Order: sequence, then structure tokens, then C-alpha cells
Amino acid sequence: MVVEYEHMTWQEVQAAAEGGMPVVLAVGSTEQHGPALPVSADWVLPLGLLQKASDRSPFVIGPPIRFGYRSRPGSGGGQGFLGTISLRAVTFMAMIEDILEELVRSRFHRIALMNWHYENAGFVYEPAVLVSSRHPDVHLVVIEQPFPEFSRQDLDALFPDGFPGLDLEHAAMMETSLYQYLLPDEVRDQLICDDSPERHPPYDVLPIDPTMTTRSGVLAPTATSSSPAKGELIAERVIDHIIGILQQEFGKVAATPTLTA
Amino acid sequence: MVVEYEHMTWQEVQAAAEGGMPVVLAVGSTEQHGPALPVSADWVLPLGLLQKASDRSPFVIGPPIRFGYRSRPGSGGGQGFLGTISLRAVTFMAMIEDILEELVRSRFHRIALMNWHYENAGFVYEPAVLVSSRHPDVHLVVIEQPFPEFSRQDLDALFPDGFPGLDLEHAAMMETSLYQYLLPDEVRDQLICDDSPERHPPYDVLPIDPTMTTRSGVLAPTATSSSPAKGELIAERVIDHIIGILQQEFGKVAATPTLTA
Amino acid sequence: MVVEYEHMTWQEVQAAAEGGMPVVLAVGSTEQHGPALPVSADWVLPLGLLQKASDRSPFVIGPPIRFGYRSRPGSGGGQGFLGTISLRAVTFMAMIEDILEELVRSRFHRIALMNWHYENAGFVYEPAVLVSSRHPDVHLVVIEQPFPEFSRQDLDALFPDGFPGLDLEHAAMMETSLYQYLLPDEVRDQLICDDSPERHPPYDVLPIDPTMTTRSGVLAPTATSSSPAKGELIAERVIDHIIGILQQEFGKVAATPTLTA
Amino acid sequence: MVVEYEHMTWQEVQAAAEGGMPVVLAVGSTEQHGPALPVSADWVLPLGLLQKASDRSPFVIGPPIRFGYRSRPGSGGGQGFLGTISLRAVTFMAMIEDILEELVRSRFHRIALMNWHYENAGFVYEPAVLVSSRHPDVHLVVIEQPFPEFSRQDLDALFPDGFPGLDLEHAAMMETSLYQYLLPDEVRDQLICDDSPERHPPYDVLPIDPTMTTRSGVLAPTATSSSPAKGELIAERVIDHIIGILQQEFGKVAATPTLTA
Amino acid sequence: MVVEYEHMTWQEVQAAAEGGMPVVLAVGSTEQHGPALPVSADWVLPLGLLQKASDRSPFVIGPPIRFGYRSRPGSGGGQGFLGTISLRAVTFMAMIEDILEELVRSRFHRIALMNWHYENAGFVYEPAVLVSSRHPDVHLVVIEQPFPEFSRQDLDALFPDGFPGLDLEHAAMMETSLYQYLLPDEVRDQLICDDSPERHPPYDVLPIDPTMTTRSGVLAPTATSSSPAKGELIAERVIDHIIGILQQEFGKVAATPTLTA
Amino acid sequence: MVVEYEHMTWQEVQAAAEGGMPVVLAVGSTEQHGPALPVSADWVLPLGLLQKASDRSPFVIGPPIRFGYRSRPGSGGGQGFLGTISLRAVTFMAMIEDILEELVRSRFHRIALMNWHYENAGFVYEPAVLVSSRHPDVHLVVIEQPFPEFSRQDLDALFPDGFPGLDLEHAAMMETSLYQYLLPDEVRDQLICDDSPERHPPYDVLPIDPTMTTRSGVLAPTATSSSPAKGELIAERVIDHIIGILQQEFGKVAATPTLTA
Repeated sequence: MVVEYEHMTWQEVQAAAEGGMPVVLAVGSTEQHGPALPVSADWVLPLGLLQKASDRSPFVIGPPIRFGYRSRPGSGGGQGFLGTISLRAVTFMAMIEDILEELVRSRFHRIALMNWHYENAGFVYEPAVLVSSRHPDVHLVVIEQPFPEFSRQDLDALFPDGFPGLDLEHAAMMETSLYQYLLPDEVRDQLICDDSPERHPPYDVLPIDPTMTTRSGVLAPTATSSSPAKGELIAERVIDHIIGILQQEFGKVAATPTLTA
Repeated sequence: MVVEYEHMTWQEVQAAAEGGMPVVLAVGSTEQHGPALPVSADWVLPLGLLQKASDRSPFVIGPPIRFGYRSRPGSGGGQGFLGTISLRAVTFMAMIEDILEELVRSRFHRIALMNWHYENAGFVYEPAVLVSSRHPDVHLVVIEQPFPEFSRQDLDALFPDGFPGLDLEHAAMMETSLYQYLLPDEVRDQLICDDSPERHPPYDVLPIDPTMTTRSGVLAPTATSSSPAKGELIAERVIDHIIGILQQEFGKVAATPTLTA
Repeated sequence: MVVEYEHMTWQEVQAAAEGGMPVVLAVGSTEQHGPALPVSADWVLPLGLLQKASDRSPFVIGPPIRFGYRSRPGSGGGQGFLGTISLRAVTFMAMIEDILEELVRSRFHRIALMNWHYENAGFVYEPAVLVSSRHPDVHLVVIEQPFPEFSRQDLDALFPDGFPGLDLEHAAMMETSLYQYLLPDEVRDQLICDDSPERHPPYDVLPIDPTMTTRSGVLAPTATSSSPAKGELIAERVIDHIIGILQQEFGKVAATPTLTA
Repeated sequence: MVVEYEHMTWQEVQAAAEGGMPVVLAVGSTEQHGPALPVSADWVLPLGLLQKASDRSPFVIGPPIRFGYRSRPGSGGGQGFLGTISLRAVTFMAMIEDILEELVRSRFHRIALMNWHYENAGFVYEPAVLVSSRHPDVHLVVIEQPFPEFSRQDLDALFPDGFPGLDLEHAAMMETSLYQYLLPDEVRDQLICDDSPERHPPYDVLPIDPTMTTRSGVLAPTATSSSPAKGELIAERVIDHIIGILQQEFGKVAATPTLTA
Repeated sequence: MVVEYEHMTWQEVQAAAEGGMPVVLAVGSTEQHGPALPVSADWVLPLGLLQKASDRSPFVIGPPIRFGYRSRPGSGGGQGFLGTISLRAVTFMAMIEDILEELVRSRFHRIALMNWHYENAGFVYEPAVLVSSRHPDVHLVVIEQPFPEFSRQDLDALFPDGFPGLDLEHAAMMETSLYQYLLPDEVRDQLICDDSPERHPPYDVLPIDPTMTTRSGVLAPTATSSSPAKGELIAERVIDHIIGILQQEFGKVAATPTLTA
Repeated sequence: MVVEYEHMTWQEVQAAAEGGMPVVLAVGSTEQHGPALPVSADWVLPLGLLQKASDRSPFVIGPPIRFGYRSRPGSGGGQGFLGTISLRAVTFMAMIEDILEELVRSRFHRIALMNWHYENAGFVYEPAVLVSSRHPDVHLVVIEQPFPEFSRQDLDALFPDGFPGLDLEHAAMMETSLYQYLLPDEVRDQLICDDSPERHPPYDVLPIDPTMTTRSGVLAPTATSSSPAKGELIAERVIDHIIGILQQEFGKVAATPTLTA
């Protein structure tokens, strides 16, 4: 059974929606991810994880949101990077609002948004609020941060030299490992590099201060420690986390509807 | 050399843009395409054509625009169909505007938009005007209708029973054949069907009049005459047409830049 | 009985609306129409045709929409011409939306929009959709293209040297003849001229390419073949076409209400 | 020489603008004006006055703005009246902004807006500010209130029973007299009536309080005292006032340019 | 009992709203008020008056609106003054709309807006209309001009040298006296000065004409005649006026609810 | 010397801005803060801290932003609470944009925003980006999270029973203590209570799930452990943190300008 929205016919979508299946959308961006990863990382990775998750829990994988809100230096390198294609806040929110509205019109009443691009936080919630206010019968779940709390053991496995926090894990070990696990051919292995900004204060400065980002686009000195095995471990944890949320919120979904394809 | 934006790293994008390569974006929609074709037809097909075209002419294949303006009954079946995910006019235009603005920021100065979704016409032009007014040095080409004038001979080959015009060729012979040629696995062959609206007047009616669309979503009684060979013929003509436009407008592009991958 | 909205009192409007009369609005622009025709051609001509049509079918002639969406080179000469007053897409759509909303509030439930300005297409439909979604009981007809299919015989009479298509008929034979028939005093006869762009490709280029428009603003080499007789023929055909649509969509309108003036 | 924009060709507009002529636009509304006057009063009257004024001072009569901001009970009867077609504030301001921008693009650098519809005040100024901020070389005059201070003698002639103030002069003596003077055929003489709201407090109440407006739409008990002679007197005073402003602000305009018609 | 919204807890707000108390909001601006008065005058003064009024009539003093629409030269000195912080029209209206909407959500059904900043007129009414259209059960009072008609006797007391009208009373005798009465410590007494623009025509000019405003920001030659006693007289009259309006519109409010603080 | 913008005259603002002083704005909200604290907590507290900080470092205390983006259940209780007055995202961002633009017009070129309302994050950054893009010479600092990393010792003093994290510290120990320290009269001491949501998952659900917030509005079981001493400790740390940022970013500000008051 096809469960990727983009590969479904309208009648298959109808059958899934009317059959009560949830739909889960990866919300990402098109943003620099250093010399080794494609600019699509922020939607390719959560899409890959959702593809694996859907093997274990029946849901429709909605069309990934490929464009996100503006990149910020401390979390994604910032708008100084060529290649990054960001939307203004109002554009991004309107796009999410329209897509949610159309999913509701298509009779989905369990919808989850799984955001991967840190900068989208808040801007994902607002359109969900607007749509929810018009459709109080629809159950919306907004996951603005996709990672679970990792166990001590996992952190030791992932960061044997000590856990530096996730703040700067942009285009670094986590995303590189996931890419190596999910889509190894897309990684420019020989270009993986470590980097870190000269400073990483808990506030933003405009115009962008180059000492608060890096030239490579990698924000943490962890990328070269990436491996497919780490990617698999992270993938497992995120998938468990997401499936846990879906089951918690949407309960046990009725027997999968019979689709035409 | 990777030339699909979504698979490029930011440094590859930079090299291409600074090397003077044009970027061409397929502009489509997520819209019902009858029982046999996925809802992604309007961006999957032009993307497939651009992939083939890029073998013959050096350009970057920009990220396809997967969401379009509202479907209309006489051209896409209309907003009565489940599965269709459309944007409001203002959302669609803002999204295109932001994407163009970011491509300009990324130093592309030759940009073409190749629209496949009829309803987007006009709404593609407006954001291009707004961006152009701010960047008069950028050369923008807006192709709102992707088909060339077919020769008599081609029309005879494609429509041996007589050419009924292209107006209703939605989810019909043209698109089905292209799918069979480009992505045969995506076609639900056994579900290909012919259909046609009871009437097809040259105006619109609101609320939607069901006699002006169909139940299947196929708008012309031509779909069952589809074939991969017809798809190839159409593909050849569209690719020639697009390459002709690019060469006419952007001239001979300088030697392909050396990219890192 | 006065049926032109702009000449009616509010009580006459009320009587007409509550009596079930349809209201039909000409949607035009303020746009260059060459050296011989006023910039108001796009609303003056459809208004003149509606005035004649209303003698044969009872409807209220709504206030004409005098400002349209941006002129494009291949259809109206483009925004390079002085004298053209265009609205941004969002402004135009908001204006149409508000006017429709107010007509509905004034109790019209049969409303037709008859567009004359090619560039308005799509931008007329969107606000009609928005208003219709709030008032599903109102019957809205959106005529974005006002011309019928002309018969072979008519085309021979209008274009004895061969029919070049309607694409470039801006400020050319069709509009000049209609002006000569409807409002002959407004035509600067001695300034009628033929012209044509160096090229007329099926796409747009930005910034505007002067070879795709003309210096005079006339886009076809047909204007000097204009005549009042041709204008009358065209007027007859358009009026028949519009009345046909109104009767098809709105049915036989009940006996004309008795108005106070 | 034609000086009404709507009757000019684009080349005549160009000649006038490049010749340094000011352009003056009547800004009105489509709003109920009682049983005796058409809904177009707010743009027809200032247009008529500008037509007379332009005989005495060379300026282009711009396209009148026929749609205004929402009617308010105490000044125009309010949005409870059928027939009134008002725009939302944002729509009205965007429309004015675009029109001003296009007049500037057409090379007018002396532009005056003469507002007749009380409710438009403020909403005319804002778009003028926005356009002025982008074109500081353009001289913009915003006349939100068109009446001069009337002399004691004039007030005695106009209101022999005592001057009640201008606040409620909607569809009353002033506008009826002007109509009788300028366009007598448009007045439904037998329907002229006096009326006045039960109360007229210096604030607004929502939802609309019917005691603060009237059933007829006439707001003052002065309409039956109208006469063409009074209309002429008012017209003279307003015309003098407007010409005085134009001369004060735009100075002596250079010799009228030679236009082609 | 605390009746100032900004000092109340949410449960106190709830008790007041559910107890049927009206809420009255001062709507002001942050705008230059000459050398002697703070830029907050337009919200500080009406807030001070509402504080006194609430001793005599039970209502909640809503959060004052501290930012207003753009200053205009003839009424507030205009946007040439540093220190003035104005909002665009669309921003101001959206802010008022949201605040009203939230007050309604918080169960207030009697809401009054008391505007002190002349330029806000119209822009206060529009958002009130929008909110009212969604909540017809809520009684909204929009007081765009806060002054009563002063009696002859009062005018003699306030303007012993003759009443020049209120038009130019910006940062002049009225506001200075009120400040001296309400918040004497905030007045820079030694900097009180008289001033007046070279001209004060009944229209606006853009770009701003310096002869239509002053260098000091005081617009009338009356400021030096200020006194706390005049301030008290004005305060009394405005308070009486506002309380009169509230009683007229909201009637006798039921016994004050028992609040928790 | 007065350094609170709201108490300054325009000439004092000018002197400060032209003298190179930074301006720092508290960005808050009007939001329920439990039974014991006023709804103004989110701007009153940072304003109070800035007042103290300005004794140690010369800057202008800009007008606090009293309205914030929508409350969310897990951080502020959510939009189910009466008394909370929130703005839509677009309104909030437009308001911040306009205020920043006016501060720049008033010649401030060092501007810091100190946000206290968690939900504003992102929505503060966007308008800062827009203004910065137009004024690259202005140095903008956006502090979306005002707390420093507390030392182990501080955490022990503040949370002797163990540090539960700051996530749920809404209307709890931190804010109550600060209020007790800064404005003790505003605290309803007898109503201080502990509370906590049934669950606090790392995602949002719409419509609001009551188990994810509390009935009281207090989100953590820490409020009853508040004390003025803890408030002073927190205040000291935040003030040091903010002053550190200002000195880091704006450097040593030149000798304080001599103001007129």
C-alpha cells in the first residue's frame, strides 16, 4: 500500500483519509548544511525517518514542506550563505495554513507536523492555531523539536568525548550520521569537516556577526565522528519518539483501510 | 556533475550560480489527476522533462514548486476533489516571490520558471515582476504554458481520431503518456479511464457546477489512447521547446563551471 | 427604468436586487490603447456592450471596474507605457472581493463578472472564490474572456486578409471598430495606425524586452482596417454571447420588478 | 484640449505629465444618498466641480475614485443601507497607493487628491505618505475636506433658517443643490425629502444604532430647501477654494503643453 | 478594588468581565509634545482622566494603547520629529482588532475606546467594525474625539484672550494644563513655550512642509497660559462627558461584582 | 537624568539618540500569571530589571512592549485563560517592525530587544531582520531568552529541593520572587499557590488539551517557595547578564550626553 502522499492518487488519499489514517508532515527547509550534505537535509532526513516509521505504524506521509523560515546564524548558519532558500515569516505561515486547511478539506482529522528546522519553531504553531480555530474537531499535533531526550548511554555512544549539547548540531555529527545511514550516496564523504563558530552567545545580532557562524556552514566540531551506525541509533530513537507521540495522541488507529493500489 | 538543486550542497550551488549557469524551476501543483496518476503529476512531469533537458543544455534544475494555485473545474477538476492541496493566490505568489529573491541572493542572474499547472498563470508572473523590479540586472523568463505548437504531423500521431484541443487534456492522454514514458511504475495502468464533463463552457461558475467537471478527475476521453511512445514524442517536443527558449533568452552559456561533485 | 447602478438611487438598487435581477459588472483596466483610443477602452467598451445588452435582457449594469491588474507586454503593451494605471495583484483582488461582498450584502444573488482585460484572468476568479465560499447561496458567473468563437463567415468579414488570431488584437481592429461603433467621437481617427512587435513568443521576459511590444501600443497590423460596421458585427456577437451565458446560468428572470424611477 | 484622464490617450497623458500639468483626482464613494440622488454622488459631484474648475486652471482631471471606505451612520448613513458599496480600509488604501504610484510612474509630479467622502479621511493620507516616502520629489496635496469656510453672507443665503453645521449635510441641501445645478436630470425631484436622525452623538456605536441614522438616508432636514441657485453658489465657492489651493501649492503652471487632441 | 487591567490578575479580570463591568481603553500615541511634556502625553492624559472617572462610575480601565497612527503636521507636528513612535495604518488597526478580540474572548461585552490622538480617527473605527461583525452581541462605543462642547463660560475661563479653536491645541494650553493638574512632576515648567505654525491650511502636503508645523512641536501660542486650575476644569468637563457617554450607552451597571483583591 | 523613554520629551530623546546612547526595550505580553500576579508580569518584570540596570550602564529604557504573541499551554497557560490579551503573529511582528523603524528614524543606532515572554521567540527576530535589512548601519541585539546560565550555587539557593528546569517556571518561584523583590505591593501573597500540569510533553496539541496546562495558571509547584531574597538574587544575575551583553555588543558607550532635564 502506498502511503506517501506524493505518490498517491486522489482516490487513494480519499480512502486513507476517510479510513481515519493520520497524516504526518515533515517540515523542513532548504538550507546550507556544510560542504558534505545537500541543502535539502532538513526535509530529506525527517522524510526518511517517517518512511521508516510508517512501516511500524499506519499513517500517511504527507508532502514534506521543503521551504522553511529564515536561517539564523547560531542554528543554521544564517542568511549569509548562498544556496539557502528561506521564506519570510508571513509566507511560511500562510503556506502551512493553506496546506493544513486542504488536508482538513480532504477529510484528514488527525494531522501531525514534525519539524526538523529549528528556526521554524513558533511559525509552525501559529498556522496550526488558525486552522484549529476553524476546525475544532480536527486533532492537530505540532512537534517543533523532533528529538527525544537521549539516555546517558546513548549520549555516551554518540558523543564519546562528552556531550556538548544539541544547540550547534547543525550539519554536524547527528545530521551527517543520519544521512550516512539513510542516504549514504548523498554524502560527500571526503568533504566532511569539523568547524565551530568563534562564539555562540544566547542572543542574536544584526547585521549578522561572522564570528557567530562559520565559513563552512558546519557549526560543531563533531561531524568527522559521524558514522552510519550512529545514524541508525539516532534514527531508532527519533522513530520511537515519533511513534510514541502518534500513539499517545491518536490512539490505536483502526484497521488500515483497503486502498485501491 | 550534480545539477539538481535539491541534491546539491551549498558550495555546489554557489559554484553553479557564480559560474553563470541558469536555473530553471518547474512550477506545478498537488492536484488530483484521475484514478491512474499521482497527485504530484504537475511537478513530477516537468521535473522529469527538465532532468532530460539538462543533459542537453547546462542549467541547474531548481527545486520544483509542488504547491500551486487553486484548481479550477474546467482545467484541473476544481477544489471539490479530495487530495488536491492548493494555495490561496496570495500565499502562492508570496512563496514564488521569496524563492526567486533567494535565488537572486544566491547569485543566479538567469532564472526561468516553467509552469505546468494552468491555474498558476498570472500568479507566476506577478511575483516575477516584483522581484525583477528590485533586481533589474537579473534576467527572468516566465513560461506559463509549457507546450509548443505541435505540428500537424505530431497532432496526427498523438490524436489519430482528430485533435480536440488542449483545453481538457488534464489527466488525459498527454499527461498519462508522459508518465508512462518517464515514470511508468507510477501509473495505475488498470485504472486509466476516459471521461469528459457534461459541458465545458468558456467561463466559470461558483459554487462549482458538477456538470462542468467529472467524477473521475479525467477531463478528456483520450486517456486510454496513451502510450509510452506518445509520451516520448511529447517529451521530445517540450524539451526542444524549452531548450529553444533558454538558448534564445540566455544565449550560449559559458563553459560549464567546475563543481566540486 | 434605470438599470445602470451608478445612476440608481439606493432604493432603486434595493428594488432591483430584491426583485431578483442579476447584476453584471464590466471588469477592465486603465491601460494604453495606442495613439487613437483612450486609456479607458477596457472598461468603456464592455460597458457599452452591456448597455446594449441590457435592452434585450433585464439586468443591472454594475459599476464598471476601471482599474485592472498590471499590463503585460504581449497582451497590453506592458508597464513601460505612461498613462497605464494598474493595480498590484493583491490590490486588484481585494477590490473585487469587497465589491462582490457588498453586492451580496445588497441582496443580489445572481452576479456576473465580464472581464475585458486579458491580464485580469485568474485575479478575477480568486476573489469570486473567496466570496462564494462565504455565500454559497449566491450564483456567481466569472467570464474572464468575453469573445465567442467567431464563425468562419464572421472571421472572413472581419479579417478579409486572413485571421491572425486574437492574441495581439490589442488596440487593433477589434477594439478600434467597437469604439467607432459605440463611441465614434472618442476615436482619434487620424492617429489610427498599424503596428506589431518584432517578436511575440509564448512566454514573458523580465525586465521587459522592447522587442516583445511596440512603441505605439498597437500590437497588431490590423487597426487601419477598422470600421463601424465591423464594430457592429463584433458587438452583436459579443452581446449574443453574453446574453446566452446569462440565460444559460440565470435562467429566465422573473418579470422585471417595478422600480420607483 | 482633452484634460479628463479617462478620455485621453496614453500619448496625451504623457504630453500633459511631461508638460508639468498637475493632476487632480476626485476621491469619493458609492454610497446611498437618499431617495433622490444616485449612489454615485460622492464622486459625481467633485468630478463635476473639477470639470468646471479645469476651465479656469490647467490641470488634468484624474480618474475619479468611485469606491470609498465604509460608510458610517452619522456621516453617510452607515453600512446598513443596501446599494452602498464600500471597501475595507486596507483595500481602499492599497488602491489609492497603487494609483498614485502609477501616476508618478507616468511622470506626474504634482498630484492633488480632493476627497468628498467624509469617511475616507485618514485613509487617503496614509497611501499618500507611503508613495511620498518613495518619491520625495513629487509634490502631493491631500484635501480630505473639500469645503471652504463659508462667509456669513453665504451661510445666510444657503441656510436662511439658521446654519445647523455641516456635520449632517449628507444627501441634504448641499449635495442636492449641487446635483440640481450640475446634473439636474439625475435628481428624482419628487423624492427629495427632509429627515434627521433621532440623535447625533459625537461618537460611534457598534452594532449600528438605528436611532443614529435615518431610514431614508437623508441626514438633515434641509434637503427640500435645495435649489440650482444654491448649487451654483456652493459650486463657485468650492471651485474657488480648490483653485486657490492648487495655485498656492503648485504655483503658476507653465504654459499649457500642446496636446495632440 | 483594583480596576486597572494592567494591575489585575486574570481571575480579577474574569470576575469583572463576568460581572458585567464595562472596560474602557485610552487610545493614544507616542508623539512629541513640545519641550515641556513627555512623548507619552496622548495616553498618559486620557489614562489619568479614566483613573479619576472610574472613582465615579464602575468600569475596568483597560490597558492604554501607547502607540498610534502616524503623526500629521497640523495636528501633532508630523513624522519629522524625533522621538515620535508611530505605527503604520495597517499595524495600528491590526493591533486594535486583536486587543478587542481578546477582550471579547475574556467575556467583556461592553467595551469603549476613548481616543486622544487626533490622527487615530478612522483607524480606531475600522477594527471595531471588524470585531463587531464577528460579535454582534458585544456593545462597542468608539469615541474618536474626547472633548465635549465647552460652554461659553468655560471657554472664557480657559481662553480669556479669545477662543482660537481646538485645531492647534497640541502640546499647548489644554494638554499642558491637564499635565499640571494630573502629573505636575512630569512637566518641564521652565520649558513651556508658545509657538504656532506659519500657516495652517485645511489640507496636507507631502513631503511635509515645515511652514505647516513648528520647530518646538507646540502648535498654538497658548501653552504659557496653562495652569493646574485650567487643567482641573478641563478634566472635570471631559470626565463628565465620558461618564455621560458610558451611562447613555451602557446604562446603569449592575452592582459592582465582588473581586478577590 | 531621565532615561525612560515614556517619561522623556522629544528633545531629550533626540539628545540621547544623537549622543549615541543605546536603547533597550523590554518585550513582554499581557498574559495570565496565576492568582497572585498581575497580567502585566511579562513586561513589568523586565522593565523593573532594566530600570535597575540603567543605574549601572547608561542606556535609554525604551517603551516596553506590553502585548505579545499568543500564549501557549506549556509555557504560559495558553489562550484558554481569560485576561490574557495576545496578538496574532502578523500583528505582533508588524508592531515590533514599526517601533524599531521609528527608533532608527529617531537616530538610535544601538538597539537591544530583551524578551521575557517565551512565545515571542522567533517573532521578535523576524521584524528585527526586516528593519536591519533596510538599515545595515544600525546595530541590533535580539535577546529572546533573558536568563543567564545559573551557577550550581545559585540553583541550590533558588531550588533547594532540586532544580526542575526552567520550562515550567511560569508564574512560579522565579517570577513571584522577582515581583516580591521589585514590586511587593502588586503580589497577592495569600493567593500564591503551587500547581503543575498533569503532563508536559515536548510538543503541542490543538485544540488545547487541558491536561497540558493548569486551572490556576501557575505551571510549576515552586511558587510557594518564593521570597524577596530569591528575587534579588535572580535580579542580580539577570542584570549582570544583560549588562554583559550590552557591553559586549555596544562596547563602552561614550560619556553620557548632557540632556536638558
